[in-house]
Amino acid sequence: MNDTETIKKRIAALRGVMKSNGIDALIVPQADPHGSEYVAEHWQARRYLSGFTGSAGPLVVTADKAWVIADSRYWLQAAKQLEGTGISVIEAGKPGAPGLDQLLVEELRDGQTAGVDGNLMSDASFASLSASLEAAGVRLVATSDLVDGVWPDRPALPQGKVFIHNLEYAGEAAPSKLATLCNNLNGAGVDAAFVADLAEIAWLLNIRSTDVDYNPVVVSYLYVSDAMKVLFLDEAKLTDEVRAYLAYCGVTTAPYFVAEDFLRNLPDGTRVGYNPNSLPRKLAEAIVMPVPAGDFGVEVAKAMRNDVQIVGIRAAMERDGAALVKGFREIESRVAAGLPTTEIDVDSILTARRAEQPLFFSLSFDTIAGYAEHGAIVHYSATPDSASQLRPEGLLLVDSGSSFLDGTTDITRTIALGEPTPEMRRDYTAVLKGNIRLASAVFPAGTRGCQLDVLAREAMWRVGGHYLHGTGHGVGQFLNVHEGPQSIRMEYKDQALLPGMVTSDEPGIYRAGKYGIRLENLILVVPAFKDEDWGEFYRFETLTLYPFDRSLIDVAALNEEEKLWLNSYHAEVLRRLSPLLLAEERDWLAEKCRPVE
Amino acid sequence: MNDTETIKKRIAALRGVMKSNGIDALIVPQADPHGSEYVAEHWQARRYLSGFTGSAGPLVVTADKAWVIADSRYWLQAAKQLEGTGISVIEAGKPGAPGLDQLLVEELRDGQTAGVDGNLMSDASFASLSASLEAAGVRLVATSDLVDGVWPDRPALPQGKVFIHNLEYAGEAAPSKLATLCNNLNGAGVDAAFVADLAEIAWLLNIRSTDVDYNPVVVSYLYVSDAMKVLFLDEAKLTDEVRAYLAYCGVTTAPYFVAEDFLRNLPDGTRVGYNPNSLPRKLAEAIVMPVPAGDFGVEVAKAMRNDVQIVGIRAAMERDGAALVKGFREIESRVAAGLPTTEIDVDSILTARRAEQPLFFSLSFDTIAGYAEHGAIVHYSATPDSASQLRPEGLLLVDSGSSFLDGTTDITRTIALGEPTPEMRRDYTAVLKGNIRLASAVFPAGTRGCQLDVLAREAMWRVGGHYLHGTGHGVGQFLNVHEGPQSIRMEYKDQALLPGMVTSDEPGIYRAGKYGIRLENLILVVPAFKDEDWGEFYRFETLTLYPFDRSLIDVAALNEEEKLWLNSYHAEVLRRLSPLLLAEERDWLAEKCRPVE
Repeated sequence: MNDTETIKKRIAALRGVMKSNGIDALIVPQADPHGSEYVAEHWQARRYLSGFTGSAGPLVVTADKAWVIADSRYWLQAAKQLEGTGISVIEAGKPGAPGLDQLLVEELRDGQTAGVDGNLMSDASFASLSASLEAAGVRLVATSDLVDGVWPDRPALPQGKVFIHNLEYAGEAAPSKLATLCNNLNGAGVDAAFVADLAEIAWLLNIRSTDVDYNPVVVSYLYVSDAMKVLFLDEAKLTDEVRAYLAYCGVTTAPYFVAEDFLRNLPDGTRVGYNPNSLPRKLAEAIVMPVPAGDFGVEVAKAMRNDVQIVGIRAAMERDGAALVKGFREIESRVAAGLPTTEIDVDSILTARRAEQPLFFSLSFDTIAGYAEHGAIVHYSATPDSASQLRPEGLLLVDSGSSFLDGTTDITRTIALGEPTPEMRRDYTAVLKGNIRLASAVFPAGTRGCQLDVLAREAMWRVGGHYLHGTGHGVGQFLNVHEGPQSIRMEYKDQALLPGMVTSDEPGIYRAGKYGIRLENLILVVPAFKDEDWGEFYRFETLTLYPFDRSLIDVAALNEEEKLWLNSYHAEVLRRLSPLLLAEERDWLAEKCRPVE
Repeated sequence: MNDTETIKKRIAALRGVMKSNGIDALIVPQADPHGSEYVAEHWQARRYLSGFTGSAGPLVVTADKAWVIADSRYWLQAAKQLEGTGISVIEAGKPGAPGLDQLLVEELRDGQTAGVDGNLMSDASFASLSASLEAAGVRLVATSDLVDGVWPDRPALPQGKVFIHNLEYAGEAAPSKLATLCNNLNGAGVDAAFVADLAEIAWLLNIRSTDVDYNPVVVSYLYVSDAMKVLFLDEAKLTDEVRAYLAYCGVTTAPYFVAEDFLRNLPDGTRVGYNPNSLPRKLAEAIVMPVPAGDFGVEVAKAMRNDVQIVGIRAAMERDGAALVKGFREIESRVAAGLPTTEIDVDSILTARRAEQPLFFSLSFDTIAGYAEHGAIVHYSATPDSASQLRPEGLLLVDSGSSFLDGTTDITRTIALGEPTPEMRRDYTAVLKGNIRLASAVFPAGTRGCQLDVLAREAMWRVGGHYLHGTGHGVGQFLNVHEGPQSIRMEYKDQALLPGMVTSDEPGIYRAGKYGIRLENLILVVPAFKDEDWGEFYRFETLTLYPFDRSLIDVAALNEEEKLWLNSYHAEVLRRLSPLLLAEERDWLAEKCRPVE
């Protein structure tokens, strides 16, 4: 708990450090030195200094003012958490709300200096921000970690032990992945790659850890050249087994903090490639001969599941589906029996059932359980004060997932706790049609995700529904639940969908103050057929295994193809989950999976 | 007819002029000074010099070599037409084939000079070409019309008389359109606009002519400011009536060729806005204070039909449909009766029927009539040597259109002349499903055409069909059959579909050596409904009125919604065309429009 006085003291202390470092405005981003979406405690400086707990949005401090720039998810929360702290909220996205660059240009005079921890902003972001400030005569400098001096009880760097992600799950050995990377480097005429992205490092070396909630990554940097592979991390995290494994992979280790000096002192003429979107500015500056050329195919290779991974994710989906059957059955019977059950209970019940499953490692993200009007808040997360009691009426939206050793799941289902209204059934059916239509798509090689987006929206547009979030995000395998490069969105992205890529398929309709409906499955790109004129065509295999709520489906609004899809999907769900269920659970599921019409 | 010796002489003469002008490589584009797709005879220099008649592709000449850069439509034709001329063909799009910039960089040495008629390349294209040549030390200069000196019998500038496009068809008076443009100029802080795009000028002033085949535009430039509006054209083309009309509109006239001096001698400080994609380089260079800011809303305003135009295009579609009923009935009976009928006869029969209709002005483009394997050649145009005899078997693809005073049509139908094969019916049905699905779309305001493209492709992808051309191009009204800014394509374009915009809906399947199937209707964006959360939604009204071929439809493959759409469409076709038909034609049409199932 931070009372407002504490916050004021911390900001005041920070201003002291700023002054002695000649910084007129300091940016404190919600970020780590690896461009991660989920940030370890050690880097939660923005939260420590401001008291704002949102997952995004920088703090900006000048000699006499301070702001948090919050996106629409967090406008209300930020206002509440920052009240009385002297930090004002900038509602990003609102007409007239300044961006970070605009704010600094407005607040600083020609010749003044803005600063940001050079480890907490990517080379690319730093360059573009620097350019827009320069135009106004404001200098942007990459500072050292100024916050450290005003954060006495700062959490240490993550201490999670590193463990090996076995070949039976990874499907390709680290030396093979490293060899491919080295080939790509030679092809690009580059001597080495320096990798900061934690998912890419974990994937390349087949190692995992518990450093970051929900993301089993290892906080580290990786240098790769033909001659030398170095993993920079806190070596206390290494067991003897992992040391031996890394040695076998030809990877030596060095302390996390020497990465910068290492880059600065490379042999003359070493051309080092890196991804300017993930490498922090400070390390990019340390490279003598930098080649900001991207990741040399690592991200795409990581996104394309191999056969072993495909077997794994299918099995993981069966265990996840079985856990959901057990959990939702318990939730529905509690509500029916009138037992007090909150949104938080929904989370704990489902989590308990998942944790019982073999190969369970952790949840893959914070469960979203939104009852009634809470379902319309896309990023809702229940707190003890906010959590609703479930009643035998209305809709419950649950978006949750598991991180199993053999696969990562992410599923959203919306269920009726009582007799649904015609509007609910119309909207649910429109969302279901969108989900099915995208899942049923067949498309030629080269098709980009953004070309298919409308398939998930068309049906709901006809009933006046729409959503501004993406239709599908890429998903990692026993890694991050949000991974690129693939996606299915309205916005243009020039990335073709390739065999083995997994994305979500999650259209939704949100009726503010009433309910939200989202239906999410994970889908895998697989070969469909080869046409003599047009070559390879692909389709999707639906990986997620859990029934849709028949009581919310207006069967008359489904066409024959959609009914066929639904019935065969439900038949497969029943077939594949039954072996993992008790007799009474099987019966319960069989009822849910009854064919329509 | 050009024999190869003639061509060689012309190229030799051109090299003489190049030498005396210090040009090491001359680019002769297939273009006019207005960025037009259809080019008047006066500017067919590329054709005159090379003998190549394709509608696109520049000629490049150096001291000892010459090339035509031809796109895939013209690879074969160019090779044939250029054989023995010493001009080689570059097959643009083939892997390894150099682009124009690459070619010049490869062929010219550091310090040498490339030239292009400054009136035949847009300011934007010139700038980007110039930049890529500069990198290689090659200079690009905007020359005068060097071809003129080696083209003794050169056709004069188009002499078409100008006529007024009456308000009963245009729906908005020229002074009102000019006033809007002036408002937009003031809003942009610009003093004047200089317009080179012929469709924009014809639309702004509600004038038309016969200067260019199929495109009833007036070869001219237009200068617009609050104080002064000047139309630059050959004043011999003006009747007294048109002179009086222009005066009433506040438009003075000046000779076509003084535009450049006019711009150079504008009052000091006159900021002139223009569209760098249509204004030729030479005129852009003549502007003392240029503002390359676009067209100040003219293109979008032109694309959004007003109510009068919508009434007009609906009526035009009825006359066009009636003409097609008469024409196709004649063609089918000739083929059935075994009367000799070629692809060229198809064109002349349909053209004759259209020409009988009130308000007919001309065809809107060259008729494409492709029988059997010719249907698979997307841009096929029958010649006396190539024209096939129709037999009572196989498929006939006909893509044709009319330019009526009250509207421009563009329709493609594919009909079976005998018993179709199962493959033909499968493919036809897939194309029809795509056409219907796009025509049935409902979408929120702000939706871009490229987002909807997949709706026309999805069904055919499932049968291994695909096409690389766009799904929908914008269509002008009694103007050009290809007009922007709207389109429906796989490629990204950030232009929302707005009410009143017309595009084609023309998916196709092409089976090389066998047949082509394309089904094209024009569709109009109209309001659908307003949702309280999401605002305005739009849908399409199908404008084109002519039946699809029931003998090619696999009814079992249509879903209920598609059958409903097809039957109600056919009912409307019959209802609206019947009043324009004779009894026996009505009966013939009624048979074609019988409901399916």
